[in-house]
Amino acid sequence: MKQRTFVNPIEWRGGVVRIIDQTRLPVELKYEDCTTVSEIWRAIKKLKVRGAPLIGIAGALGFLLGMHKARSKDGSGLLKEAKRLRAYLASSRPTAVNLSWALARMQTIVEALADRQKEEVFCELKSEVERIIDEDIQMCFKMSEYGSKLIRSGDRLMTVCNAGGLATSGYGTALGVFYRAHEEKKKIKVYACETRPLLQGARLTTWELMHNGIDTTLICDNMAASVMRGRNISAIFVGADRIAANGDFANKIGTYSLAVLAAYHKIPFYCVAPFSTFDLSLPCGSRIPIEERDIREVTSLYFKKPIAPAGVDVFNPAFDITPHELVSGIITEKGVIRRPFEENIKAIYGESVKNS
Amino acid sequence: MKQRTFVNPIEWRGGVVRIIDQTRLPVELKYEDCTTVSEIWRAIKKLKVRGAPLIGIAGALGFLLGMHKARSKDGSGLLKEAKRLRAYLASSRPTAVNLSWALARMQTIVEALADRQKEEVFCELKSEVERIIDEDIQMCFKMSEYGSKLIRSGDRLMTVCNAGGLATSGYGTALGVFYRAHEEKKKIKVYACETRPLLQGARLTTWELMHNGIDTTLICDNMAASVMRGRNISAIFVGADRIAANGDFANKIGTYSLAVLAAYHKIPFYCVAPFSTFDLSLPCGSRIPIEERDIREVTSLYFKKPIAPAGVDVFNPAFDITPHELVSGIITEKGVIRRPFEENIKAIYGESVKNS
Repeated sequence: MKQRTFVNPIEWRGGVVRIIDQTRLPVELKYEDCTTVSEIWRAIKKLKVRGAPLIGIAGALGFLLGMHKARSKDGSGLLKEAKRLRAYLASSRPTAVNLSWALARMQTIVEALADRQKEEVFCELKSEVERIIDEDIQMCFKMSEYGSKLIRSGDRLMTVCNAGGLATSGYGTALGVFYRAHEEKKKIKVYACETRPLLQGARLTTWELMHNGIDTTLICDNMAASVMRGRNISAIFVGADRIAANGDFANKIGTYSLAVLAAYHKIPFYCVAPFSTFDLSLPCGSRIPIEERDIREVTSLYFKKPIAPAGVDVFNPAFDITPHELVSGIITEKGVIRRPFEENIKAIYGESVKNS
Repeated sequence: MKQRTFVNPIEWRGGVVRIIDQTRLPVELKYEDCTTVSEIWRAIKKLKVRGAPLIGIAGALGFLLGMHKARSKDGSGLLKEAKRLRAYLASSRPTAVNLSWALARMQTIVEALADRQKEEVFCELKSEVERIIDEDIQMCFKMSEYGSKLIRSGDRLMTVCNAGGLATSGYGTALGVFYRAHEEKKKIKVYACETRPLLQGARLTTWELMHNGIDTTLICDNMAASVMRGRNISAIFVGADRIAANGDFANKIGTYSLAVLAAYHKIPFYCVAPFSTFDLSLPCGSRIPIEERDIREVTSLYFKKPIAPAGVDVFNPAFDITPHELVSGIITEKGVIRRPFEENIKAIYGESVKNS
């Protein structure tokens, strides 16, 4: 099914990890080969690769690269290197839980094969990354099927940031839903919020949607309320970086704002995210760590001249928390979870957690 | 009282109109001399001068400049030139009503002095501009007095765009309220929304507030909801470009969004605007014309490289309409107007309209 993905944002190419440098889009589609773990770490930190599911995959590939270069040949030496690798890669970004989820899967392999030679461990780790990627694609396809059922032909939809092929292994979560609706010949129009400060909506989402032939209009984030009111938005679909046990979720800054505005305008508001995004160890959203980033993202991004006075104080949280009360449904690969979220999340994922 | 204004964004200097080119702030404080009416027109169109009250003053000064250069020496010739001037200047920007209000005042002078020589008409017009400017300063001071009564020491406040000295003849509407509270030794903190696409909040409001010693934090527009929730915002003050008879008002895009978010978070939401901003000929906000601007403001502002794919569709309204249901009060130079707005606006301004 991989041929159905239109873009390949990351891949293993015989000892190097090839990524699309997403900070250069849409001006140029530039691939970059990461040959060291610290290059992967920086690629995640600097948002060359971003999007919760893709960060997970990048972490797993970084782990694979680290183990490929491991000095130890077997046993406890390998395990020690694996632990260090895991902690290092997990430190690149704090909010998306998919990263620690993927790293935990990799670590488990190393632990289970503590008595094997390095080559064998590496082969198993490589298979695990392939499984993570394949599962991601399958989950995106499943979510897109469930999500598309909520869309009718003629709908005007809205999204924020980039929850597309570039945020996953190629198909997308929220944008995957739009792709599926489009494949099913539903006529849709999508308003993409530009998503300050780093403009993932303007740079990445419009690029993906236009590439896939979807009628797309770019707006600034502060126009969303006007567009909801004046252009009769049918539904809003967004991704997620971490979902707590009660359905509260972290996503790109501005998501909470859209959720409040959607409630006021009586517009259904859906979060689209796979199992790897749930963190059932957290009872509610207030426990999710929110990354604050460099203030220069706000005061001088891309600008040759500054856009704010020198020395200005800036608050630059990369994410916000949307409380479950504002969510109409969470679209997962196992179906659409509705209220009451806490009960229904437990019913679907409780077992998986125990088994994972 | 003029010495209490900290900046002089526009003035008549013997046959030329000197403006601050606000598009260059905060990088440089550059004055520019407009020697022709079309330079004034372009300065308004290109937002070198902006802000509803200041646009009115710029229009009046453009009118004065045009009459200064008029070829006719008296009578019907002058009147004909005045009519052309008024229509031309009014076409620079459609939403703020202060522009047509100020031009109407100037036109009235010309009509009243139809039997006089050009020099005499010019002197009267010059006095009228001075009156408009003095009235603006007085109105800003009055509004700031009424507004500051709504602020307590320790308050955390929020605003959007620039409704400050740079938007008026030097003191400000919404920011004037903050200046007054600060002068009264109230400890306040202001969150300034950056205001995409043209970043008047980031560029102008932070510059003004910092210049005046006010504790200021810059945020992106899509962070406002998070800040309201997490940082316990006490009240929001914004300006206005046109207020309809029922209290609906047009202001910079994003204002409506803030009003909805404020209502959800139970935060008082105030509009600060002088009489010249009211357009009682319009029963409600849906009748206010909304200017749509060049899409390049969204896709490539200041950027050497584009931030969106070539050919992307963009919706770029410069203003939105905030319905009166979301407004806690309209702070005018005659006091704070509360619900029911239609009745109370009529009570305060009904007579003024008849007499104007």
